[in-house]
Parts: sequence; C-alpha cells; structure tokens
Amino acid sequence: MNNNLRIRVAGTGLTKFGELWGENVESLAAQASREALKEAGLEIEDMDLLIVGNMLLGQLEGRGHGGRIVADALDFFGPSLAVEAACASGGLAVRTGLMAIKAGMARKVLVVGAEKMTDADSETITRALMGAGGGDEQMAGATFASLYALMHQSYQRKYHVENRLMAAMAVLSHKHGALNPLAQFQKTVTADEVMESVLVADPVRLLHCAPISDGAAALVLATGRKPKVEIIGSGQGGDSLSLAPRKDLWQMRATQRAMKEALDHAKIKASEIDVAEIHDCFSVAGLMALEDLGFCERGLAGKYVVQVKDYMINPSGGLKAAGHPVGATGVKQVVEIVRQLQGRGGNRQVLGAKIGLTQNVGGAGATALVHILKVND
Amino acid sequence: MNNNLRIRVAGTGLTKFGELWGENVESLAAQASREALKEAGLEIEDMDLLIVGNMLLGQLEGRGHGGRIVADALDFFGPSLAVEAACASGGLAVRTGLMAIKAGMARKVLVVGAEKMTDADSETITRALMGAGGGDEQMAGATFASLYALMHQSYQRKYHVENRLMAAMAVLSHKHGALNPLAQFQKTVTADEVMESVLVADPVRLLHCAPISDGAAALVLATGRKPKVEIIGSGQGGDSLSLAPRKDLWQMRATQRAMKEALDHAKIKASEIDVAEIHDCFSVAGLMALEDLGFCERGLAGKYVVQVKDYMINPSGGLKAAGHPVGATGVKQVVEIVRQLQGRGGNRQVLGAKIGLTQNVGGAGATALVHILKVND
Repeated sequence: MNNNLRIRVAGTGLTKFGELWGENVESLAAQASREALKEAGLEIEDMDLLIVGNMLLGQLEGRGHGGRIVADALDFFGPSLAVEAACASGGLAVRTGLMAIKAGMARKVLVVGAEKMTDADSETITRALMGAGGGDEQMAGATFASLYALMHQSYQRKYHVENRLMAAMAVLSHKHGALNPLAQFQKTVTADEVMESVLVADPVRLLHCAPISDGAAALVLATGRKPKVEIIGSGQGGDSLSLAPRKDLWQMRATQRAMKEALDHAKIKASEIDVAEIHDCFSVAGLMALEDLGFCERGLAGKYVVQVKDYMINPSGGLKAAGHPVGATGVKQVVEIVRQLQGRGGNRQVLGAKIGLTQNVGGAGATALVHILKVND
Repeated sequence: MNNNLRIRVAGTGLTKFGELWGENVESLAAQASREALKEAGLEIEDMDLLIVGNMLLGQLEGRGHGGRIVADALDFFGPSLAVEAACASGGLAVRTGLMAIKAGMARKVLVVGAEKMTDADSETITRALMGAGGGDEQMAGATFASLYALMHQSYQRKYHVENRLMAAMAVLSHKHGALNPLAQFQKTVTADEVMESVLVADPVRLLHCAPISDGAAALVLATGRKPKVEIIGSGQGGDSLSLAPRKDLWQMRATQRAMKEALDHAKIKASEIDVAEIHDCFSVAGLMALEDLGFCERGLAGKYVVQVKDYMINPSGGLKAAGHPVGATGVKQVVEIVRQLQGRGGNRQVLGAKIGLTQNVGGAGATALVHILKVND
C-alpha cells in the first residue's frame, strides 16, 4: 500500500433503506451522491472518477454499463466504472476508490453503492441472489438461507451455543435500528420472537435473516494532508465460492484474511476498534464475523453480543434491521462509521469513538472486505 | 499516476475466438489464464489479485460474483474482483490491474477478460447487449446496430465519404484476420462484398458489424525494474450513455479524452505508435477511432485505412474478423500488441514495432479505454 497518500472522507450520503416504490437504481444512487457532494462542498464536475458498486442490474433488469447509468443520472461525463463482488460490491467499490487515489489515477472519487431489489418477486430475487453462489450449490437447489443454515448448524454444534445466544445478533441489530430514522425496520425484537419466527431453512428463522431492500449510499473520497476522517486500513480476502471445498463451516477465512491485511495497513490492533459495522446477513454470519475479526474468543460471540457495551456493534441496525440493498451495504457501513466518528450518531452515538471498522461479505463468505477509519483531532 | 512503479507484462494467454460449443465463461477464462501464467513462469498461488472483465454473466446466465467464478475454476483463494463497462470491460480490467499495482495493493495481478455469447438466441443477445445503451434508446427499440447506423450516416454526410471507403475498415480487419489462427473469421472480404451484404440497420450492413463470439484473454501484470514489455500509458474517458445529449455523432469524445490521458502518461506523441488494435465493432467506429486517436485528419480515415502500411492497424483482425467476445476484447487487444512487440506476430508481424496502442469502447462511445505499450531493448 502506498502510504504517502492519505485518504480523506470528504462527504457522505445515504438514502432511506426499505421498500422504495418510486425509485430505481439511478435515482437512489443520484440522491445519495448529491448528498455526499453537498457535504463535501464539491460539484460532480470536480470528481475525477465515479465508481459504482452494484450486483443485480444485469440479473434483475437486463442492464449493463452500471457506471454510466449512474453517471448519466448525475450529468457526469468523466470516467466511470462498475465493480461487482455479490453482496460485497459496496465494500469493493470503497476499496477500488482507495486504489484509484493511491495509484495517483484520481484525486477525488465519488463512490456509490446502489441496489433496487423489491420490484422482483420472491422467486426471482432468490434466484438472482443465488447467482452469486457456487454452481454445484445452484444445481442442488440451495439458497443463501440454506447455505447459512449449514453454517448455523455447524457453528452451533461446534461451540454448543444455545438458541437464545444464536438470536442475540438479531436482537442487538434491531435494538439499534429502532433508533435509526433511515433503517428499514425501526423496531426492537426479543430473543423469543426470533426463536419463534417462521422457519426459513432449519435452523434459520425469518428473524435471523436480513431483508430484501432498496437503497443507496455514497462517499466522496479525496487526498488530504491533514484529514479529519480518514480511511487508514483496507483489506480484502477470498475463499472458495462453494462451501464444499472448505475444511469447516464455523469460521470465514475470507474475513480473517481481510482483517489481517487491514490491521497491517492501519498499524493498529483489533482491540483499538471503538465501533464496527459488521455483515449480519444471517445471525450466524454476524457471530462468526465478531470472532473472525478478533473481537472475542471463538464460540463466545453470542455472549459477547449480549454484553456489548453502548452501540459498539452495528449502531446503524446492521443489515438485519437497517436493511440490505446488496450493492449499497458496504458503502453504507462506511457512511455510518464516518458519521459516528464525526459525532453525528444521534441517539445511537458511540461516545468518544475514534477508530471504526466495517466488514462486508460477498456470497457465503467467498469475498470479504474490511475497512478501518479514524478521526483525527 | 504513480510513475515510480513500472508495469511489466509477464505473460499473455488467449483462446480461439468463435462459436465454442463446449466451453463456458470459467473454462475459457481458466484456459487463457493458465497460458498467461505458464508464459510468466508463475503459479496461480503467486498472484496477489485476480481481476475479471465480463459484461453478460448476469444478463445471460443470471450469475454474479464473476471474480470468484473464475477464481474457483483456477483454485485461487486470494482476493478477486469483477469490473464492468459494457464492451470496454476488458480494457477496464487491464486499467484496474495497473491501478492495483500502482497503488501498492498488489505486486502480481492476473487480469482476465471472458465472455460466452453464442449460447443465446439472437433476440436475447441483442437485448442483453442493448442493456448497456441509454434507457431512452432501449425504450425506443434501438439496438447497437441502429445507434451505430446513426453515427455511420452522420459521419458519412459530414465528410462526404463514399461507400467504398466506409467499407475499408472491414476489408482491412478481414485481411489481417485471415492470417490469425485464433480469429473467428479467417477469410478476406472485398469492399464490394461489404457493400452488397444484407442490410442490418440502414446504412449498416452485415459485413460492417463485428460478430457475436465466445472467447477469453489473460495477462499477468507485475512490477518490474527493467521490464521487457511494459504498459507505459493508460487513459479512460467517458461520455453520455445515450447519443441524444451529444453535440454531434461524427466523433467519440470518450476516445479523445482517453487518448489524451494515455499520451500524457506515456509522454509520447500519437505519431510514435507503430501498431494499434482499435475497436471496430462497426465500420464507422473504427474510422472515428483512427481520427479520435490522432492517426489521421478528420474525415480521412477511410483513405488512411486503404493506404495503411504493413499490419499497423488491427493485426489480429480487430473485432470485425477476430471476433468480439465483449468482456474479452479489451484484454485480447493488449495480448495481441504484447505479442507484436515481442516479435511473435507470425505472418502478420509489424516489423520493428516498438510502441503499440489499444483502444476499447463501451456502449455507443460512453466509455473508452486506451493503453500504450512499449518494448525495451
């Protein structure tokens, strides 16, 4: 990593997440982008590059050239590109923005993640999402709920975790989401409600699952000599697309790899993180993430979550309560952390947060992105 | 651009282009990748990053996570990403590879472009490709043939170019493709044959159009202190997705912008280019490219093509004769130029070529990528 250039977050933008009937990918992306540009005090013409994170334009709408679709909505005629890594497309867009600046190929970059999912019926959206799974898994009729059910079972058996603790992640994210005016579900749920909700893929129940959502998030990244909020670490890890080749299913090596790179880059330890947005697409994903990131011992994430202080984990409501428009999620996580570091967390502010982290996963753990941010005095 | 790091092309790989019944995106990508790794004397484990350029996995196959699909086929567990900019996805993948290395985020990168198009029926593939056009153009029932027909008309009227000269680009590419064992069409065509071929979208005729193709191309990029073949320039330009907002249709500003950046980066002049692979998806696209790149005066590209010496333009056969698997094209252009600079052009070798160029276009000119390569003594 070229550490001579420091990356400043100059502006953030975020739409409401949820079922947004009157919007499409480009209107959502434009809305988030305009907010980020306004915060940065910049115009679209000031941008050297537009990077769009999106997964489903091709599958759901038969459209391509995602970078230009958003560029046109913003009347932007500079270069653009679209990046894709399933549900980690947003985190990948952030990393690609860093890359462009560190390479000296751009000084100001607009990074947008956007997705419009709720127009599709359940079968269509389930099939489209599963397009990011392994070919063997698709042939066998697996869905992501069923793949995460395998991980849920495997994790729970390995560490003898009771159902109440497996539900803790959803309870925590909903507790925080209830305080976030942009969240899809602004209400709390109890562990009993999670454990009694309808079975989706045994043992995964409805309230273990993040919803289908529409939404967009944007960041203006720029070089900065003395940045207020800066991205100090970025890491990306990979693993097999299918679960079958993996040695075990109770951890995600992609997250571990991404975290190691991000910590090395940031020159900090996991214990220095004050606030984190993690990828709780399913309850077990959130629990494994906390262990893979080194926040707690293996098998103890459920207990950790119950005891978690303040709003340290998923202050936004995570994917579970705030919503999961897949291409937007990784960017939205960074937006939430930036606003926390700026003291803009409202009634879910983590007091005194100086260092924050985001973790974004694609597929059933085949891709993971970790970013570390810091606010300077 | 961070010019302290020089980018070496360590290996190249290329499949046959054409109608390849037994293959899919990942088998083609793996085949080209293995050849590139072998040429580089490296193993897949040596790669820090895999970048995949692909446009149609989502539209045609309902699949996502393109980076991991190829990674799995290669048993690669490091980080991967997919980039997309319609028919410029390949060129974009090359540029993103440069970016990763220049940013210090990778030292060895495998860049692959791959596409499988011939399994779809004509309507499906036409619609999928047009997914990269403007929304207004899609609603109006336009296809890329009809959009390029507007440009063909506009260009021909502006510069009073006779039909025979409009056909010259196709004649040239076929002349060279006839000598390329990996080309889809290894045969020559005459200007009369072009002018008498069936009308697709008046005045665009069948032999003005590049075909629908399957194929893949790969590059191993690495840092190098004294590289033999290096990428010395990279540029990317944008323009409106739709044609309507453009002031005129007889030039492509995206190509002009990309060329300016690439020349500035390479610190050379257009007149120093010895060999070029240009994006002749339709005849008029090739003619405009030659002018936008500064190889000849405006309106004179047809005459330039008739007089072009040696195999200087499209030695591979271009998109027209060698084939156009959209995500692969931009990478394949670089593979051809590298092999020309290495003196491996066979009976279509440009004698003494030292500096080469590639130009890759997405949509109807909404994205353009230019790369400049050099062989050192």
